[in-house]
Amino acid sequence: MTAPDYGKAFALWRDQAPEWADYTQHAFVEGLRTGTLPRADFLHYLRQDYIFLIHFTRAWALAATKGATLAEIQAAAATVQALAHHEMPLHVQICADAGIDKTTLETTEEAPANLAYTRYVLESGYSGDFLDLMAALAPCVLGYGEIGARLKGSGGPYADWIDTYAGQDYQKLCYDVGVLIDNALVYRLGQDWASLPRARHLSQRFATATRLEVGFWQMGLNGA
Amino acid sequence: MTAPDYGKAFALWRDQAPEWADYTQHAFVEGLRTGTLPRADFLHYLRQDYIFLIHFTRAWALAATKGATLAEIQAAAATVQALAHHEMPLHVQICADAGIDKTTLETTEEAPANLAYTRYVLESGYSGDFLDLMAALAPCVLGYGEIGARLKGSGGPYADWIDTYAGQDYQKLCYDVGVLIDNALVYRLGQDWASLPRARHLSQRFATATRLEVGFWQMGLNGA
Amino acid sequence: MTAPDYGKAFALWRDQAPEWADYTQHAFVEGLRTGTLPRADFLHYLRQDYIFLIHFTRAWALAATKGATLAEIQAAAATVQALAHHEMPLHVQICADAGIDKTTLETTEEAPANLAYTRYVLESGYSGDFLDLMAALAPCVLGYGEIGARLKGSGGPYADWIDTYAGQDYQKLCYDVGVLIDNALVYRLGQDWASLPRARHLSQRFATATRLEVGFWQMGLNGA
Amino acid sequence: MTAPDYGKAFALWRDQAPEWADYTQHAFVEGLRTGTLPRADFLHYLRQDYIFLIHFTRAWALAATKGATLAEIQAAAATVQALAHHEMPLHVQICADAGIDKTTLETTEEAPANLAYTRYVLESGYSGDFLDLMAALAPCVLGYGEIGARLKGSGGPYADWIDTYAGQDYQKLCYDVGVLIDNALVYRLGQDWASLPRARHLSQRFATATRLEVGFWQMGLNGA
Repeated sequence: MTAPDYGKAFALWRDQAPEWADYTQHAFVEGLRTGTLPRADFLHYLRQDYIFLIHFTRAWALAATKGATLAEIQAAAATVQALAHHEMPLHVQICADAGIDKTTLETTEEAPANLAYTRYVLESGYSGDFLDLMAALAPCVLGYGEIGARLKGSGGPYADWIDTYAGQDYQKLCYDVGVLIDNALVYRLGQDWASLPRARHLSQRFATATRLEVGFWQMGLNGA
Repeated sequence: MTAPDYGKAFALWRDQAPEWADYTQHAFVEGLRTGTLPRADFLHYLRQDYIFLIHFTRAWALAATKGATLAEIQAAAATVQALAHHEMPLHVQICADAGIDKTTLETTEEAPANLAYTRYVLESGYSGDFLDLMAALAPCVLGYGEIGARLKGSGGPYADWIDTYAGQDYQKLCYDVGVLIDNALVYRLGQDWASLPRARHLSQRFATATRLEVGFWQMGLNGA
Repeated sequence: MTAPDYGKAFALWRDQAPEWADYTQHAFVEGLRTGTLPRADFLHYLRQDYIFLIHFTRAWALAATKGATLAEIQAAAATVQALAHHEMPLHVQICADAGIDKTTLETTEEAPANLAYTRYVLESGYSGDFLDLMAALAPCVLGYGEIGARLKGSGGPYADWIDTYAGQDYQKLCYDVGVLIDNALVYRLGQDWASLPRARHLSQRFATATRLEVGFWQMGLNGA
Repeated sequence: MTAPDYGKAFALWRDQAPEWADYTQHAFVEGLRTGTLPRADFLHYLRQDYIFLIHFTRAWALAATKGATLAEIQAAAATVQALAHHEMPLHVQICADAGIDKTTLETTEEAPANLAYTRYVLESGYSGDFLDLMAALAPCVLGYGEIGARLKGSGGPYADWIDTYAGQDYQKLCYDVGVLIDNALVYRLGQDWASLPRARHLSQRFATATRLEVGFWQMGLNGA
């Protein structure tokens, strides 16, 4: 499938990540598409995703701290706000509708695959700079966008989930994050950034984060 | 003057900061109150405050990253959002009204006193934990609240500035930040936190940040 | 088995970590003890441990950055120096003796279990304070000490490995790290730190890190 | 005066820092050279330098944490070790010889100029990457080298201080740090790094740190 147009960096990094297809076409994803994903697996995923979203929000907040321009800080701040005050309550509601109450969410033990991905992202941001953080965040943000775009209209029991990521709002977010990343690269490294060693390091970071996303879906299937 | 009621930690830290009065009753503040502050000094302050606000926003974003509970993350996120998408544009507008255009703001050289305070706050957050960051941020947030409350109704050429901090919105923010800090202390250190060595260290951080706030006002007066 | 005496915090945290026995008596460890661990598994472990040691060194360096007293900074600095200029070259030599050359080490892909543990430790340090970092580092440092003490004199093909951790030098290090941690707790939280909520949070961090150590041994067995 | 040869980045950054001469030829430095610096100023400087060295050690430890290659980590680790276990005890001894005991050192209040510089360096490292940290550290490390080289053989009451920085050991350190920085730039940005926007940002960081070094000398003269 053609990649959605989320910018130049995404196109490059996606092509260079060996496990991109393993991630975006994972059996978990196919189960969402065909509707054959066992409900228990989906609920397990939702519980872990609650914890994931907390750390994902923290990571975007770190992006605001690490932004070098007011525009970068404002873009990251808006994402933090959306995650903390819109996505999180929505996720809690979705879980409640699925029979998972707030106490269950708050007492869920974080799975190793969840720890691996979220801490990798945060540590990339702390130890590296804004670009390292973006490269580690991108597989999640933009990968879900690509999955949503591909699964659009699949219907079935997971249509709500699919519609969230296929929808115009989320696709717009992916487009904007793509612009944020491309601008951040040019701002620091100039127009020819793709030829620099730094580009290879960032691509490796994106690939590692992609590998950990595969582990996250697998955790969803394994129930652990 | 009686301190406004911004919570238990503030009351304690304020009492233990030797330079609290030097800060909140600084000649710059008195000049705002009586209206005798030279316009040039105020404009200099506004230019530096633009840079200050950027780093202050980054510091609150770091608080969101370092929050241990969803409530802490959400509170910090809301502050980041307010700063990045409300305070910053408002400040740019206030500067424009005062004849300082955006290019001037963006090319202003950051004064040492500004560097000292903002980097001290950020480094407190990075090297310490959420509490260290709060103790370093508090003199600014709550000190401006106390100054606003004291100068309320002074009128004169700086009435707009005074009204911002004397106003209900800002006073409510101070109250909320006070609750955030007190809850964060109890969550980590229990009800008797004030008797722990940690309380003394946090109080020292508050005092150091207060000392750097004195330097910030002085920079406003000195024009450097 | 009785725990070695590595101080008060270790005794407490060890008792409260549900997976402590799963970690210190893991099948991988038993294979080292009985000598039945397949050579290929051990070599796989050595390759991953090379990457682990790099991040472990970085984590101890972060402890030096986050130390609040000269004594804490000096203790962490000495550990960083020992790791970077003694352990790392030694590990490279051990690998060379086992037929793994430096290029192989440098091109080994980091396993998810390795990413999970190392990034959890680093992120604990970045997002928390010195104590959070110590609680996340302790299962590795002190757990290897306990394993070494228990396996002492087992002989067999892995006697060299066992002797390293059973030896006086390493046991002394464990004792010293125990003192460092206990002192750091008292310095910040006072003599009765164990009764504070903070103690529970730190214990949970120790338990999570222990869980990820189990995953690290399991990775050794699985070859992935 | 010709700059000492501490590498390509230093040569570039030095040329682009408007206040480089103000820093390296500051009245405080001239007072050291001619021997006319009042003893009280020198003692004041020594007391503040004790605090500075602690934070400087912490900053180099952060460099070890942020290193991307084993060579970078090892180089930073060796510097941390030298600072924590050689420079610090030496400094304490020098102060003792000058009549300043350890308690005085430990209770000295950190001057704003000290806070400004050290926290700027640390925050550069935390918010940026290894290169940002190096650019902020360089004016201190390499500037003292240049000052030492220039003042070499001046004799007088401050000959000991001068000889430390003019000596072969310190000059070798400067040379090595220059190599570390140049290699780090090429490793990340390629041979043509000087043409990238990133080079300008790093140069600005070096210039800001230089400006804060001027403030540090001035603090020495002012006694505050």
